[in-house]
Amino acid sequence: MRDFVIIGHRAVTSPDFSLNDLPGSGGRMDVLCRCINSALFLSHDMRRDVRVHLLLLGDPDPGIIVRFEGSSLKYLNPDERSSGSLIKKSLQKNISDIQVQSTPGVWIRKGNLEMLMEEFRDTGRNIFYLKEDEIDIRASAHLMDDGIFIFGDDMGVNEDEEKLISGYEPYVISLGPLSLHTDHCITLINNELDRLVVDK
Amino acid sequence: MRDFVIIGHRAVTSPDFSLNDLPGSGGRMDVLCRCINSALFLSHDMRRDVRVHLLLLGDPDPGIIVRFEGSSLKYLNPDERSSGSLIKKSLQKNISDIQVQSTPGVWIRKGNLEMLMEEFRDTGRNIFYLKEDEIDIRASAHLMDDGIFIFGDDMGVNEDEEKLISGYEPYVISLGPLSLHTDHCITLINNELDRLVVDK
Repeated sequence: MRDFVIIGHRAVTSPDFSLNDLPGSGGRMDVLCRCINSALFLSHDMRRDVRVHLLLLGDPDPGIIVRFEGSSLKYLNPDERSSGSLIKKSLQKNISDIQVQSTPGVWIRKGNLEMLMEEFRDTGRNIFYLKEDEIDIRASAHLMDDGIFIFGDDMGVNEDEEKLISGYEPYVISLGPLSLHTDHCITLINNELDRLVVDK
Repeated sequence: MRDFVIIGHRAVTSPDFSLNDLPGSGGRMDVLCRCINSALFLSHDMRRDVRVHLLLLGDPDPGIIVRFEGSSLKYLNPDERSSGSLIKKSLQKNISDIQVQSTPGVWIRKGNLEMLMEEFRDTGRNIFYLKEDEIDIRASAHLMDDGIFIFGDDMGVNEDEEKLISGYEPYVISLGPLSLHTDHCITLINNELDRLVVDK
């Protein structure tokens, strides 16, 4: 299993955003939509062993987690508008602490980063966090099988979030010499993990 | 310099497609838009040493090349709709064999794959073509600096195109054990090239 968490600092928590303006009205929802694509799509196939957790922290009701489960996901196409549409549908549900399924493979509930990190700690799996100038992914790939990967959006991860994540003893890794978009980072991690499976 | 060519087999050659339906009305224009993103974007920056050549082969006027020049590109945002909008604007020009600039860094002209390949051959640079189960990118990275990379869209490269490309003695490389979307392939190649520059 691979879990990708993306923190959407301005991602709106109401279904009233426009699919014609995901960056503006959606609070950079386009960033999260591209992460859905890079995490889940293979050529003419879907990664069934991947889960994506979108943490929506924008107005009007910050603190919502939308989870895409590769194993049971339906109705997702590769374009941004398609994942945007499934997120919008999930936000139309009655959202509480108890998760509900809005469409096959898409779940929504109230929640925050700490709650997610606690749940992940309970699994005993390795947690990874990206930072420039850290240990290169190619030197730590052997630890990454079954990994949990925590990302910021276009604003990165703020100081409080970094402090929180650091409390869970993550491996801190780097993907190369340049600073990249989160969806590009996910593509690189998926490729490294694909290579790992074959090398086994 | 890095050049990425993407063959859009159904990509429409009229500006009459809807930005609200890039996959349908645009003839899978969404695939090309995602390639623009993965080829050109860095975190809060743009890759100025990258050129993307979109070969549009859909109706009504198949055989148009739209070129995005990282060095002079303006008005491009990371979302699919943004690159779709620049492509749409370029298709509104009077298109002939002589290239015209539609917006800063976006050029359009009539053309086909053979014409592009001839132009690339004249540069003397290495040409790369992707295929599964070939030599791994990590073993051929040293040849890729200043490379030209030819891709199909979601339909891949057809037999005639493969035959044509093969006539230009390309290096045939592979990116890993699984078959990936073209934009994900471009992200992996960019990362490999980024690492190469640093290792120099």
